[in-house]
Amino acid sequence: MELLKQKIVHEGIVLNNNVLKVDSFLNHQIDPKLMLEIGKYFAELYREAGITKILTIESSGIAPAVFTALQLDVTVVFARKRKSLTLQTDLYTETVHSFTKKETNEVSVSQKFLNSNDRILIIDDFLANGDAALAMARIVEQAQATVAGIGIVIEKTFQPGFSRLKELGYRVDSLARIASLENGQVYFAPNLP
Amino acid sequence: MELLKQKIVHEGIVLNNNVLKVDSFLNHQIDPKLMLEIGKYFAELYREAGITKILTIESSGIAPAVFTALQLDVTVVFARKRKSLTLQTDLYTETVHSFTKKETNEVSVSQKFLNSNDRILIIDDFLANGDAALAMARIVEQAQATVAGIGIVIEKTFQPGFSRLKELGYRVDSLARIASLENGQVYFAPNLP
Repeated sequence: MELLKQKIVHEGIVLNNNVLKVDSFLNHQIDPKLMLEIGKYFAELYREAGITKILTIESSGIAPAVFTALQLDVTVVFARKRKSLTLQTDLYTETVHSFTKKETNEVSVSQKFLNSNDRILIIDDFLANGDAALAMARIVEQAQATVAGIGIVIEKTFQPGFSRLKELGYRVDSLARIASLENGQVYFAPNLP
Repeated sequence: MELLKQKIVHEGIVLNNNVLKVDSFLNHQIDPKLMLEIGKYFAELYREAGITKILTIESSGIAPAVFTALQLDVTVVFARKRKSLTLQTDLYTETVHSFTKKETNEVSVSQKFLNSNDRILIIDDFLANGDAALAMARIVEQAQATVAGIGIVIEKTFQPGFSRLKELGYRVDSLARIASLENGQVYFAPNLP
């Protein structure tokens, strides 16, 4: 998605070979026009996929997810992160380790918001090691619902997330694919066909 | 706002005399059409207020904030909650105690996203004791920017948040004002003129 790539080039900050900071338009400050365009783009990709609901994870997934949901005329559910959970029986829960933040969280979704007829589009801001997306996919499967696809705003192709998701048979669509952050520079990978 | 009140009546769950659960459209599942209408409503109220940026707090404030921001053609910044902060000098930080969740968090905003020329519209999902809104207002004032107003999706008028904010001279606009949750019932307060 060209508009997104331009934003990354102009406003992204390469912190090191692994971390791209995009807090001026996605992770802290949010550009709502860009989010609207991202929503339209994902909606176009999944228009015929029979999506019944979007699942994302707080907090940076929420903005791209709600604009996509508006276009597809479905609701969003955002998985909640918690450090320690008192046992609640009405939640689907999975564990996510964030390599960037060096912390492990439980993420959970109320059982009442997912059912076995749902065809879920998972949306997240970044795909790196794939742990967050995999946790969401497992939550969908706990509910015996279907993962129709995984929409990623920014994928780092030099990390294993994409391969892990594809090996499990998931459809994955990334709007910007970053091949490398070496020498403080953003190098994009070609779009997938 | 009538559409919002209907949603509250039909889908809100009164947990006790103090807590209204609206996780089917605002706090966990999000209804994007309702968020779009909320965004239009806030934007109409603040169209002439010279807003340059919206400040909200993760996670439930993000959806109403981004739709308002789209209408007003400004960006959103969401304050981040953290349990314990390593000292960072480039952040504005305040402490928020949540009575509902019985926890104290630090909330912070990068200094680079607020400046002294900004006229800020603060948006949040709930106004109860006012601690989150007050923390955001203090962050705006740390940046020597101006709080142009505070837009609240659901206010509980039987808790002191509104009075605390008004005493400090802030403009406050709530889309639904709940006077009481007694006997498991939602009673609305009249709209303010």
